[in-house]
Amino acid sequence: MSCTVRALSVAEPGGPIVEIEYEAAPLGPLEVEVEVTHCGVCSTDAGLIDDKYGRSKFPLVAGHEAVGVVSAVGAEVTGLQIGTRVGVGATAGACFHCEWCLRGQQQLCPDKDDTAFRGLGGGFASHVRASDWRYATPIPDSMTSGDAAPLLCAGATVFSAIVRHNVRPTDHVAVIGLGGLGHLAVQFLAKWGCHVTVISSTAAKRNDALELGAHDFLDSSEGLTQANGSFDFVLSTVSANLPWDTYLATLRPHGTLSMLGVFGGTMNIAPLSLILGERTLSGGLTGPPSMFRSMMEFPDRHAIRPLTETYPVAAISRALDSVRNGTPRYRAVIEF
Amino acid sequence: MSCTVRALSVAEPGGPIVEIEYEAAPLGPLEVEVEVTHCGVCSTDAGLIDDKYGRSKFPLVAGHEAVGVVSAVGAEVTGLQIGTRVGVGATAGACFHCEWCLRGQQQLCPDKDDTAFRGLGGGFASHVRASDWRYATPIPDSMTSGDAAPLLCAGATVFSAIVRHNVRPTDHVAVIGLGGLGHLAVQFLAKWGCHVTVISSTAAKRNDALELGAHDFLDSSEGLTQANGSFDFVLSTVSANLPWDTYLATLRPHGTLSMLGVFGGTMNIAPLSLILGERTLSGGLTGPPSMFRSMMEFPDRHAIRPLTETYPVAAISRALDSVRNGTPRYRAVIEF
Repeated sequence: MSCTVRALSVAEPGGPIVEIEYEAAPLGPLEVEVEVTHCGVCSTDAGLIDDKYGRSKFPLVAGHEAVGVVSAVGAEVTGLQIGTRVGVGATAGACFHCEWCLRGQQQLCPDKDDTAFRGLGGGFASHVRASDWRYATPIPDSMTSGDAAPLLCAGATVFSAIVRHNVRPTDHVAVIGLGGLGHLAVQFLAKWGCHVTVISSTAAKRNDALELGAHDFLDSSEGLTQANGSFDFVLSTVSANLPWDTYLATLRPHGTLSMLGVFGGTMNIAPLSLILGERTLSGGLTGPPSMFRSMMEFPDRHAIRPLTETYPVAAISRALDSVRNGTPRYRAVIEF
Repeated sequence: MSCTVRALSVAEPGGPIVEIEYEAAPLGPLEVEVEVTHCGVCSTDAGLIDDKYGRSKFPLVAGHEAVGVVSAVGAEVTGLQIGTRVGVGATAGACFHCEWCLRGQQQLCPDKDDTAFRGLGGGFASHVRASDWRYATPIPDSMTSGDAAPLLCAGATVFSAIVRHNVRPTDHVAVIGLGGLGHLAVQFLAKWGCHVTVISSTAAKRNDALELGAHDFLDSSEGLTQANGSFDFVLSTVSANLPWDTYLATLRPHGTLSMLGVFGGTMNIAPLSLILGERTLSGGLTGPPSMFRSMMEFPDRHAIRPLTETYPVAAISRALDSVRNGTPRYRAVIEF
């Protein structure tokens, strides 16, 4: 079984998007093929196209928030049928036999299949594959495919951090940055039961923050000392090197600052920022398949939805430029 | 009730030790007075005498690993009798009514009474007080007072980190530094059931490390890349600014680096050191009274004992110099 894939490819770093066609290899026994209807655009996609991480393979098809319908399944796929609506995120497979996979922490599998680093094979295409069907997450009937797409990376990354750090409904939490990740984090945390503060340097986002469920908004350009000792959990969703001691100071004792954004350079942290108050600094990846399943259930129950800007395929370059400039309110989605 | 205290005091930063006498205030209702027989010497004592932290009050009596016999109790002390052998560590009291005290995390009490920062009132004296009797920890009969003393700060600091981070007997752990804290951490972790590696820049400590229960020894001056991805938990017991990304790289996924030592400057950490592998960096204080009680039981059951060098009172300056130079093998104790 094989199929002709039409994909939006770039041939070299920063190069223009061109439509290509290629014949996909025969489907492996655990693989599923998904006919893509929607794919979110993440800043990592722009970074991959621009080879910002020095790890891109060209020709490159980006896209790792793909939603569509299962169009073919491998011979040993036992739990997914052709015709099911599913999403494929930044990870499309894992070995399911290493220590981390056996522990249910497949995001730590050393042999996991990163959709974003495959070269060809991303979600900006007519078809995308999960190399293991357990990485094709069914989408609830009540959720549109355009709304589901941003959950597959932006949503999963923040939801996973909330789950992994055992954030409790009684916690006071802060979200640094109101963008693709942040606007979902605010909704998740508000429905989690927490007191939620958005910290942003863009004062104009105050109203959006409050409408999304935040209880408070702090304009970081005015300083944060008023918030010292306030938060049990601070989630940084920005890819910027901030004055981290200032942010660690906003934590209550035993609080955690969880870092999701990658940036160049090093964080500078005074040891007493961690020692006094026994504070924690932690980094996070996207979660395992079990987390994707509970993440899809939670927004369904709580009417959590991303705010999206939908672009037709022909406008993908414009969508990417918008992401490069950080202007989407709050996530760009390509409709195929 | 009051008493005349003979204390080993310094009048000014770095000044000589002189014996002084003063009348202690009447004993408060929850206070206990301890007639000191032994007191450990911590590098923080030398730092306080030298006003290295800029927070010392002079005249200053250092010492915060005091062991002795309860000689007087306040009117409302309900659980401790005159004649009981106890230890008083770096903290001598807390409010027992704030949020953190009520949660059993008295080390986070904003009004806790730090023995080391009182000015007069440290353990290098004939008598020391716990401002709350719950901070006078009974010493098991089988343990000598000279052995108990170093547990009250060095021991408590490492034991508390092990407990707080839920270190498991199946874990592979590393201890950075084999000194006053490190040589106790190795013993605790070996008896915890862990696989223990000592990381030190002093190759001559290899034999001591193995005799104390370590399974492996790494000479950090030869590089650590061979240990990449090895440890579930790394405990830094040194007060030095190390190449932290190198140490974070020795963690397994989901591993924690716990920092106990304070130093000047800032730690420089690449965000991917935390994000890849979802690693954690954390700081720790000494623990609450409940932890002190279980810490006293654990070495009693497992024959864990500090290695000490005992000095008579007259030699306290020599003991302090030894601590300043990092030469004790492995903890200096003053005998009164």
